[in-house]
Amino acid sequence: MLKGKVLVAQGGGPTAVINQSMVGVVQEARRIPSVERVYGALHGVRGIVDENFVDLTQETDLNLEMIAATPSSALGSTRDKPDLEYCKNIFKVCQAHDIQSFFYCGGNDSSDTCRIVAEEAEASGYPLRCVHVPKTIDNDLVINDHTPGFPSAARYVASAFAGLNLDNAALPGVFLGVVMGRHAGFMTGAAAALRQNEADGPHLVYVPERTFDMDAFITDVKAVYDKYGRCIIAVSEGVHDASGAPIITQLMQEVEKDAHGNVQLSGTGALGDLLADAVKDRTGIKRVRADTLGYMQRSFLGCVSDVDQREAREVGQKAVNFAHYRDSSGTVTIRRVGEYRVEYELDKLSDVAAKTKTMADEFINAEANNVTKAFVDYVTPLLGSGIPETARVRLGNRVDKILG
Amino acid sequence: MLKGKVLVAQGGGPTAVINQSMVGVVQEARRIPSVERVYGALHGVRGIVDENFVDLTQETDLNLEMIAATPSSALGSTRDKPDLEYCKNIFKVCQAHDIQSFFYCGGNDSSDTCRIVAEEAEASGYPLRCVHVPKTIDNDLVINDHTPGFPSAARYVASAFAGLNLDNAALPGVFLGVVMGRHAGFMTGAAAALRQNEADGPHLVYVPERTFDMDAFITDVKAVYDKYGRCIIAVSEGVHDASGAPIITQLMQEVEKDAHGNVQLSGTGALGDLLADAVKDRTGIKRVRADTLGYMQRSFLGCVSDVDQREAREVGQKAVNFAHYRDSSGTVTIRRVGEYRVEYELDKLSDVAAKTKTMADEFINAEANNVTKAFVDYVTPLLGSGIPETARVRLGNRVDKILG
Repeated sequence: MLKGKVLVAQGGGPTAVINQSMVGVVQEARRIPSVERVYGALHGVRGIVDENFVDLTQETDLNLEMIAATPSSALGSTRDKPDLEYCKNIFKVCQAHDIQSFFYCGGNDSSDTCRIVAEEAEASGYPLRCVHVPKTIDNDLVINDHTPGFPSAARYVASAFAGLNLDNAALPGVFLGVVMGRHAGFMTGAAAALRQNEADGPHLVYVPERTFDMDAFITDVKAVYDKYGRCIIAVSEGVHDASGAPIITQLMQEVEKDAHGNVQLSGTGALGDLLADAVKDRTGIKRVRADTLGYMQRSFLGCVSDVDQREAREVGQKAVNFAHYRDSSGTVTIRRVGEYRVEYELDKLSDVAAKTKTMADEFINAEANNVTKAFVDYVTPLLGSGIPETARVRLGNRVDKILG
Repeated sequence: MLKGKVLVAQGGGPTAVINQSMVGVVQEARRIPSVERVYGALHGVRGIVDENFVDLTQETDLNLEMIAATPSSALGSTRDKPDLEYCKNIFKVCQAHDIQSFFYCGGNDSSDTCRIVAEEAEASGYPLRCVHVPKTIDNDLVINDHTPGFPSAARYVASAFAGLNLDNAALPGVFLGVVMGRHAGFMTGAAAALRQNEADGPHLVYVPERTFDMDAFITDVKAVYDKYGRCIIAVSEGVHDASGAPIITQLMQEVEKDAHGNVQLSGTGALGDLLADAVKDRTGIKRVRADTLGYMQRSFLGCVSDVDQREAREVGQKAVNFAHYRDSSGTVTIRRVGEYRVEYELDKLSDVAAKTKTMADEFINAEANNVTKAFVDYVTPLLGSGIPETARVRLGNRVDKILG
């Protein structure tokens, strides 16, 4: 049973719906009569060790609902990755403030923090429930069918590429878009979700689950360009060579070798620009453009999946009622049980903590340059409702030439 | 009076609403009994000289409405900039196909094409009406209060920065976003449209109407960072030094000087990355990120201003009925006549052709590092309805520290 003080915090990269989860925790906890206060830690675990708490018991329902609909982490976040000592400090602060349950919205690092804090509390005989509330646009938490934050980010990527495809059809050339996701290709794969026919881009999709071969890449681009007179490519920021070295490093070394200098090329636009240069140099195609989709993928105001909003709210609420009715620490997981339905479970923190899920083999084609129909079927129901339909001019009524 | 065949084409960069204008032309022309056919040229003026026409008289109303709501140029576009010879060929094809009116959606280059073709026709005694239908995300057509395409692109930029501001508040640091607009800063200024209070970013806005001074820039960033612990910057891709040389060139020369090599840095991400490097090097701030907003600014599926949609449709319709009832060539212009109302006029092609409007002085602050309230008042009604409201956690209920 939940009692005393409840603490909620948000960690890692913000998402479009992480506030839904935080508000789900707060509203469900406020309904439990034995809960005395609901605290929010400002800037994640850093706010806990610094005792930077705000009393969310005194926040209005109206403002909570408006916060839920606001992207990014309203309590603030942190990139701190707690070690054992840091976790002991988290536990000490919880003990000092009579906090008896801790809900942490975050990715696999955050679930590991929950795990260590829960173990510290247990070793001390202090009754602290620690529940991890899943969140990550990378979609890389094991057990989970998918994770809150990913569907909205996927909707952004899919909508961006649907528009870029139309733009590129109007002014043909090669377009290369670099998508977030260092180890898992789910976000990059989402670029393909709104293709309507075979000629629609992205025509090529490269994910970090497969080795990126520069020669094969150039051959692929040439083949698509020869066929359609244009080519759209979605490439993950994490693409790497056979040794596991990121392509960005490889390309930078080439530049350094050419220039005999120490040119600093770190920064978000570099991979796209360097791949675009490689395409220009090796294919002779003139119009080659690259964009890096950047932080808009997780923060763009107004691009959110309603499916994601609902699920993010539910995982927050379920975290509290699992902790209350099962009296247990753990991690809330999402399972797909129909077309399209989900159910939630409470799993052991150690089963999710610090583990990384990547794309299933069936989601990537044999040539390692595209996603499969199975992936599109997987991602489509997550994108939510209200994505605009598009149409094209029908070319059946061509006019005969007169001058020839 | 409009009769015989009507031709419509789309030129230059696609926008979110250029199909509204094309459909406005087609639907209005189809209503006129003396109009025999409405042709669309595929890929702009290139499609005219190549006689690549599709008969839009035979397109369904349903599909036209769906095309109108689809971003990018459904007829295709071109970057061809016609010279006199090219314009003579356009005229010849029009004459051969008995085309008696030509509607061209585009920017100031397109209006100049209209002007030359109209002059050729007049010199030959052939009754060809040429009407320019305004379109450009850069918002740089003279006479016009604003141009179709800009409001939707401004909405994208404003929404992106509103989200980036929330993201940066959660994980503080310096964020720099590079916005389209080589000579006019309207798009970059739009980054400031959704700021809600003084602490909201973008805190600094640099437009090409003013000289970009690197020392002043670094000083500005430091001052904002010292005050708020974070800093968001919107910078136009066209920023330049006192000599008019683009900053991107200047930074590339510095890199070359340092490295004594021929490093190719052309590409869309370079300016952001290089400015971010300058901030890191000269301020010592560690978390500095840069994104280039890229082609999503004009093509993102689902980010469109309803005000822009309506006006883009109307300029298409007005182009046809001006040509029909006034029996005149010209360019349709938009004038703001209230808070918020517009009216349309038909102006001389030569008054708009090949001229460039930039931001009024009253839109840029004295320090040349921000836009004014006058600019925000100008741009706000253009963004349209349905932009989500945001909220933040109220910090009035801070919890007292116990461990200190």
